[in-house]
Amino acid sequence: MSQVSQVREIGVGLLGLGNVGSGVVQLLADNAAAIEERLGARVVVRRIAVREAKKRRKVAVDRRLLTTDARAVIDDPDVAIVVELVGGEAEAKQYVLHAIERGRHVVTANKALLATHGPELFAAAAKRGVELYLEAAVCGGVPVLRALREGLASDKIEALHGIVNGTSNFILSTMTAEGRPFDEVLAAAQREGYAEADPALDVDGGDAAHKLVVLAMLAFGARVRLADVYVEGIRQITPVDHAYAERFGMVVKPLVIARDHGTEGLELRVHPTMIPKRWLLASVAGVNNAVYVTSRALGHSMYYGRGAGMMPTAVAVVSDVLEIARNVLGRSPGMAATSVPRLTRRAVRDIGLLRSRYYLRFAVLDRPGVLAQLAGVLGKHEVSIAHVTQEGKEPERAVTVVILTHEARERNVRLALAQVAKLASVVEAPRLVRLCE
Amino acid sequence: MSQVSQVREIGVGLLGLGNVGSGVVQLLADNAAAIEERLGARVVVRRIAVREAKKRRKVAVDRRLLTTDARAVIDDPDVAIVVELVGGEAEAKQYVLHAIERGRHVVTANKALLATHGPELFAAAAKRGVELYLEAAVCGGVPVLRALREGLASDKIEALHGIVNGTSNFILSTMTAEGRPFDEVLAAAQREGYAEADPALDVDGGDAAHKLVVLAMLAFGARVRLADVYVEGIRQITPVDHAYAERFGMVVKPLVIARDHGTEGLELRVHPTMIPKRWLLASVAGVNNAVYVTSRALGHSMYYGRGAGMMPTAVAVVSDVLEIARNVLGRSPGMAATSVPRLTRRAVRDIGLLRSRYYLRFAVLDRPGVLAQLAGVLGKHEVSIAHVTQEGKEPERAVTVVILTHEARERNVRLALAQVAKLASVVEAPRLVRLCE
Repeated sequence: MSQVSQVREIGVGLLGLGNVGSGVVQLLADNAAAIEERLGARVVVRRIAVREAKKRRKVAVDRRLLTTDARAVIDDPDVAIVVELVGGEAEAKQYVLHAIERGRHVVTANKALLATHGPELFAAAAKRGVELYLEAAVCGGVPVLRALREGLASDKIEALHGIVNGTSNFILSTMTAEGRPFDEVLAAAQREGYAEADPALDVDGGDAAHKLVVLAMLAFGARVRLADVYVEGIRQITPVDHAYAERFGMVVKPLVIARDHGTEGLELRVHPTMIPKRWLLASVAGVNNAVYVTSRALGHSMYYGRGAGMMPTAVAVVSDVLEIARNVLGRSPGMAATSVPRLTRRAVRDIGLLRSRYYLRFAVLDRPGVLAQLAGVLGKHEVSIAHVTQEGKEPERAVTVVILTHEARERNVRLALAQVAKLASVVEAPRLVRLCE
Repeated sequence: MSQVSQVREIGVGLLGLGNVGSGVVQLLADNAAAIEERLGARVVVRRIAVREAKKRRKVAVDRRLLTTDARAVIDDPDVAIVVELVGGEAEAKQYVLHAIERGRHVVTANKALLATHGPELFAAAAKRGVELYLEAAVCGGVPVLRALREGLASDKIEALHGIVNGTSNFILSTMTAEGRPFDEVLAAAQREGYAEADPALDVDGGDAAHKLVVLAMLAFGARVRLADVYVEGIRQITPVDHAYAERFGMVVKPLVIARDHGTEGLELRVHPTMIPKRWLLASVAGVNNAVYVTSRALGHSMYYGRGAGMMPTAVAVVSDVLEIARNVLGRSPGMAATSVPRLTRRAVRDIGLLRSRYYLRFAVLDRPGVLAQLAGVLGKHEVSIAHVTQEGKEPERAVTVVILTHEARERNVRLALAQVAKLASVVEAPRLVRLCE
């Protein structure tokens, strides 16, 4: 018995015991022997804060560990690492700040919290000399933040293209494969548990924007305002758009895009994007996530996998816990935190400044001269046409005109579309999808 | 001035100043300020061992750092981290062991060394309490080993499918795209610098086998004999095979495959493989590398990027140097090395035990009953046929018969093919390509 007590222990306190929390408890239990061998110490869950102490749990857990008092978990002197899995912003922020103040290291999967209050939390952690790890906040168990932080530590990241919202990717992939409309596929996704009852955060781009802000912190050391990110959801994409994309050898994907323009600021945008089928990101289907990184020395690299779900997210949380444990065990007193990015306030470029190619779809009455009118308005705004398709020939009935532009300035494209919308022959607001090539 | 001298310094000694070494010097110089800010210490190249001190260099380097005496670099008391980039096995091994003995941490990109002597070197490093990092040995700058070691630390890896030799992938990709034969594409690759003058290590699978053994150490903690890995190169793949693959919705890729069969041992094989076009690995083209990981908790994940080249490899080496520097700075005296995998001797399953689907190609004289003969021999060996194609109808001329089998035992397939080869109507040794689906 005396031998047993000599093994060092690292205490973990969990805030939240839902899906991810249960996964964390299970992984730590299942891998206890391997972890102990690897670390030379045990990682022990000391206390768990839950909302309802009596609820049935998905995982075998000693009920004496449960409490409804999150602060009691944080304040427990045997807890070295606090894992925040309560979600939301206000409450989670208070807990994380309290944990930092108490000298606890923190692991969180809360991208909303990080996107809004990340810089403040990182500053507090750096000041107190504790770690704040967040691998699970982007792409679940795929260690993309670790790759940015460690693997590419001496590289300069120039751009990122990511699929970071599994629900949106599932819906667009299914629409592409089956030619069904958005509402129908969303309803199916909700029945199958791939979409929430309230899907807004996923399909309107808010969740992806949170993750993009977190990626910008890690990739560029950038502190940006969430509200400055350009965000457009996937609701307006129709089966017709997927069919045209297919015809052009492209596919519509829910991308987040970040690019460093140096003194001109960062380009940060979230919107459905047509990309060539030959791109690796085009093959990232279903609920999967991927981040494609362009960096100066390495060139291109991509990180792919399940971006959500109980066990994938738990793998990321546990990897953070183990890295902190390793640091804690080996660490000299007073050493600075190694996980905390140094952030610089960066401006976000207005979307109007974007230069891109565009897919434009118009519903027009099939009258003589309509195409010339469209082309005239676009030309007047310096939007030049690479390709035009007009479907059907039914006088006085609405037909579809699709135009692919050469690279143009977004501001000009928008002005042109506003003017086109006022033409008598145009029966519906023009649609726009950005292209990446 | 006194302020300057208070910044801590971590000394690095380089063994070798070729492409990768020059890249390392350049990255450390270009990122010096960022590294110092991040680490709170400087990483300084103290000495560099070269074969010829007077040769022109690709990178600006203080010639006083150069020496032709590798041991002098290792023995320099200001060198904390030795970066081995001399290549080869015998000499490199002596240097690495000497460095470990002297208490230096080691970074190496030498997969041949690791595949053959890795377990011995890891054991020496563990005993001496120094780190032995090797990110650059597999997939260049793509942090796949880091992902296996850290990101998936609490997961159980079940299988890996990888494209880890850029030259082979470039050749097969070009053959697929252009329908040209192996020899012609190899010659072009040699002219363009994508293949060595002596391409054997790349196109015959030896380099990939080295990397597979290294991956098996990190993914399964397995100590295996390099000679037990099944290795088959890409020389025998013809444009005809690519054309058939295309017809079946597949593509031929130079894969390494590892799977853990528990007490039955590890499956470790290197050979060209037909995979469905919809697989992400099918879209990994040109000189790019990727490793697709199947693990219990995370499910699937993939790591992709440039697997070779001066700067991609240098990024990986520098990421290792920085991680060691971070550990060294924060580390308590006597702390165990964190990079060293604990290895267990594992048996490698004989390729004869493999169950797989097969693409079989025969050149036969177009006589009545030939197909029945082929089918009969296969059936007798429990190899059942999923699909048969016979091209052309030219009596007494050789025609091509292609058979896709259902899953069969490799041993049986080989016995069947040996018997088929003896048939009077069979004019050429049958060809075999394994399928993965």
